[in-house]
Amino acid sequence: MTRPLSVAVLLLALGFCRGHRLDLSPGDELELETRFPADAPQGSLWPLPQKVQTSEASFKLSGSTFAIVDAKRSSAGPSCALLQDAYTRYYNYMFGSAGSQWLRQIRRSGVSELTELQVWITSTDPECDAYPGVTSDESYELTVDQPHAVLKAPKVWGALHGLETFSQLLYEDEYGAKIINATSISDFPRFAHRGILLDTSRHFLPISTILANLEVMAMNKINVFHWHIVDDTSFPYQSRTFPQLSQKGAYHPYTHVYTPTDVKMVIEFARLRGIRVIPEFDTPGHTQSWGKGQLDLLTPCFSSTKPSGTFGPVNPILNTTYQFMTQFFKEVSTVFPDAYVHLGGDEVDFTCWKSNPDVQNFMDQQGFGQDYKKLESFYIQRLLDIVTTTQKGYMIWQEVFDNGVKLKPDTVIHVWKGNQEQYQSEMANITSAGYQTLLSTPWYLNRISYGQDWQGHYRADPQDFKGTDEQKKLVIGGEACLWGEYVDGTNLTPRLWPRASAVAERLWSAMNVTDLSDAFQRLSAHRCRMVERGIPAEPLFSSYCPSEYKHL
Amino acid sequence: MTRPLSVAVLLLALGFCRGHRLDLSPGDELELETRFPADAPQGSLWPLPQKVQTSEASFKLSGSTFAIVDAKRSSAGPSCALLQDAYTRYYNYMFGSAGSQWLRQIRRSGVSELTELQVWITSTDPECDAYPGVTSDESYELTVDQPHAVLKAPKVWGALHGLETFSQLLYEDEYGAKIINATSISDFPRFAHRGILLDTSRHFLPISTILANLEVMAMNKINVFHWHIVDDTSFPYQSRTFPQLSQKGAYHPYTHVYTPTDVKMVIEFARLRGIRVIPEFDTPGHTQSWGKGQLDLLTPCFSSTKPSGTFGPVNPILNTTYQFMTQFFKEVSTVFPDAYVHLGGDEVDFTCWKSNPDVQNFMDQQGFGQDYKKLESFYIQRLLDIVTTTQKGYMIWQEVFDNGVKLKPDTVIHVWKGNQEQYQSEMANITSAGYQTLLSTPWYLNRISYGQDWQGHYRADPQDFKGTDEQKKLVIGGEACLWGEYVDGTNLTPRLWPRASAVAERLWSAMNVTDLSDAFQRLSAHRCRMVERGIPAEPLFSSYCPSEYKHL
Repeated sequence: MTRPLSVAVLLLALGFCRGHRLDLSPGDELELETRFPADAPQGSLWPLPQKVQTSEASFKLSGSTFAIVDAKRSSAGPSCALLQDAYTRYYNYMFGSAGSQWLRQIRRSGVSELTELQVWITSTDPECDAYPGVTSDESYELTVDQPHAVLKAPKVWGALHGLETFSQLLYEDEYGAKIINATSISDFPRFAHRGILLDTSRHFLPISTILANLEVMAMNKINVFHWHIVDDTSFPYQSRTFPQLSQKGAYHPYTHVYTPTDVKMVIEFARLRGIRVIPEFDTPGHTQSWGKGQLDLLTPCFSSTKPSGTFGPVNPILNTTYQFMTQFFKEVSTVFPDAYVHLGGDEVDFTCWKSNPDVQNFMDQQGFGQDYKKLESFYIQRLLDIVTTTQKGYMIWQEVFDNGVKLKPDTVIHVWKGNQEQYQSEMANITSAGYQTLLSTPWYLNRISYGQDWQGHYRADPQDFKGTDEQKKLVIGGEACLWGEYVDGTNLTPRLWPRASAVAERLWSAMNVTDLSDAFQRLSAHRCRMVERGIPAEPLFSSYCPSEYKHL
Repeated sequence: MTRPLSVAVLLLALGFCRGHRLDLSPGDELELETRFPADAPQGSLWPLPQKVQTSEASFKLSGSTFAIVDAKRSSAGPSCALLQDAYTRYYNYMFGSAGSQWLRQIRRSGVSELTELQVWITSTDPECDAYPGVTSDESYELTVDQPHAVLKAPKVWGALHGLETFSQLLYEDEYGAKIINATSISDFPRFAHRGILLDTSRHFLPISTILANLEVMAMNKINVFHWHIVDDTSFPYQSRTFPQLSQKGAYHPYTHVYTPTDVKMVIEFARLRGIRVIPEFDTPGHTQSWGKGQLDLLTPCFSSTKPSGTFGPVNPILNTTYQFMTQFFKEVSTVFPDAYVHLGGDEVDFTCWKSNPDVQNFMDQQGFGQDYKKLESFYIQRLLDIVTTTQKGYMIWQEVFDNGVKLKPDTVIHVWKGNQEQYQSEMANITSAGYQTLLSTPWYLNRISYGQDWQGHYRADPQDFKGTDEQKKLVIGGEACLWGEYVDGTNLTPRLWPRASAVAERLWSAMNVTDLSDAFQRLSAHRCRMVERGIPAEPLFSSYCPSEYKHL
């Protein structure tokens, strides 16, 4: 960012790069390509805060004198480990790159120095040791001015976001000195639930990959890690109650599992960054891997009159199934502190149930006729009752709502299906029934295509459907999903970032922040910032970062 | 690979994973998903050698006793640095992973030990210090048997390929001991030119990224690095004769350039792996970045009667242009040892030439009328004459042939345009005119889509067009292209591998090696091998590797 490109270079993209052996379809891209990251304003913010006022006045900062300190009136002191940890983390983001250490010794004449950021937690309970939740206060106010900058937040969660914003305001002058402009920011999220789904079943993700992505989530003010931890393909969750589940169901019982310690570490690492961890244990479908370690859990499929040796969804007609689920979700409720657990409930294939004579008898007894959706609902209803006894709320995929299962009023219904028209009408139906909802349909980031697909993700809006203001308020946010068929530790991080950043801004910033050209500028700068912090976030288009990613 | 998956897990993909929120189109994928890498045969080879015979008899290998040595009758001895370097490299691939060091101490009773691989260069000149070329002999014969394995090759190039094959034959038994089966292989490439194009202009690629990819090319028996080194967007090649070109035209004159030392290192690193480095200096289009450091090189564009301040392709009407090109390509011919240089010649936009009154006058003088293709050919013809004086052969993109430029008989014409029907007819036309040709159209790996697109790359065949046997012989191979708009050091390697491996096998193995299901098995194992060697090659589908990639 220290070497602005001249106009001639900027024009290149417009006239010459674009068509190069690509046959790109025309569109907004044309306009966007006229700008390069180096053109982005210094201190580009992502996601954009609700209110920002910046002045021309600037201050210099020196790594040797600058400090982040608790304000005197703050309700959080040195014992607030979460904040102390964050101070260290952000100091390192701002001053940690060894490359420009000596440059910072150069004194800029005529520019005042900013030596302190005071962090002031204003409410009586800062929530230092709490877990974040859907009702957590994430707001903050940041004032950068003499004699010191002040970051005010009711709770630590807002302070974490404010530290990220403060770190984003820093830029380097032509001598490599760190500079910040006088700025006043008032900020809060548009939606309370801003999530990313990672799938650790189709491919096992090393803990290092998960932690790195939690780190990037915090940089993007994402506050929910939806951990789709098990599925058909493998069961890497090591259960204390049922160790056979991962012993038999993981890709490997030792090298491809998450131990209780691993899970605890992920949860604490996330908490320190204001991120909730919501595990998904999807049933009754998507459970093939469960069946390997838990006999009789899955429905035996029949071929004509004999068991075929294959298995279908969870067996909904046995009492043992519900005994197992009771014990299993009791464990889950203690391992994962979040108030919600995601219970899945999507894509139940009825073929196997239909083939099984015991299931058919059960259907007759219950008077379900041939309506297998009723059997599915029967199972889900009992599961929800079980989970309710663990004092957890639940999230479920939209099919459960579509099938008319009776849900607790605080249930969150997760929309993932259909085209734009269909998901908008689904959102309308769900909110019209008085339920809270989350959108994912337009944000299936596993689906890749050639070119700048972040623009489509950026354009989607979870409140864009026909409904009353009351209905719109029931939209608590959305999640970007990265299903695991084609990603693992080798390619997950660059495939997710900065594409998920587009979703992050949609869910945090004001509804009217929709200018694609401005977003391109800021996002390009933000992606270089992620690269600078060691994250291999992929490029948006032909361009460069001052410091390129040099690993593989 | 030590823990084969049971049938039940293998069936998962078929019945349950596939539809998961994906709406994949049906096709061959269905069949392929029934197999997991862990199911792949031990010692999976990629690309498949021309002839392989394997027996059940197996030998164990110990890192503490095994040696790769020059055979007594070999024409290459300890002074052949290329081979000595390769012995070290392959020893480390085979025994270098610290993880299983102690396991290798376990002695397997009843299994003989293989302690030596003798490398025997059979021709009088092993070509130890030479550069590989399009006529280099790359054949080898490998016999794994008691008392030692023998790798025979006329030249070092074949020996390098044989070492790779030998290393691929190794697998681990359940105790982690290294095992190899008695095997006899006779191998040679189907095509002499098997290339990968990387673009260092749209994004600068760090040297570490280039070297890592050369390393992977060798693992895939790719023998040409087509270095699309400069283009409109930036000019990172540091010229000794014209230092201003990168000084003004690179993204940054110091951090985003390839110095003469860098270039030398890339060439030598490639040579040691049997890889040619063919630079592309594309003119007269795609040259915006050249114009920043070389005044008057580009055509000034006019807006009505005045220069608009923007520039078009290289100015073909000035003598100074040809004087510059003479000096520049003289330098290029000494910096790059390969017998060929790629001169580009694609996508020339006539708009600017048409706008310029001096160009119009020149057209009149030459009697070109309004046919700007004649002007383009005029330029290219003079350029080819200039390059001919440097004793280099040249490769050019297909437009130069299409426009009827007079070409030397040894010219290689590079096909990149059109749909399948169009490129097949282009290949027919080129070979019918007696020229050698290379195919890239179906292998634009920068174009990504969701799912297993390697299958399409694998199906394409450069000799699949209507023509005589003589014509087919003029097809010297192909190149996978990874244009740089959307890739840099953050995502290039996982995006390229193992997708480029599909092209590698098409160009090396026999024409009838086309079984997608077998290829899926071997390629999955090969991608885990690349991961094991530290390369973040992305997964083909839901699966796991014994040792996952654990960096970002």
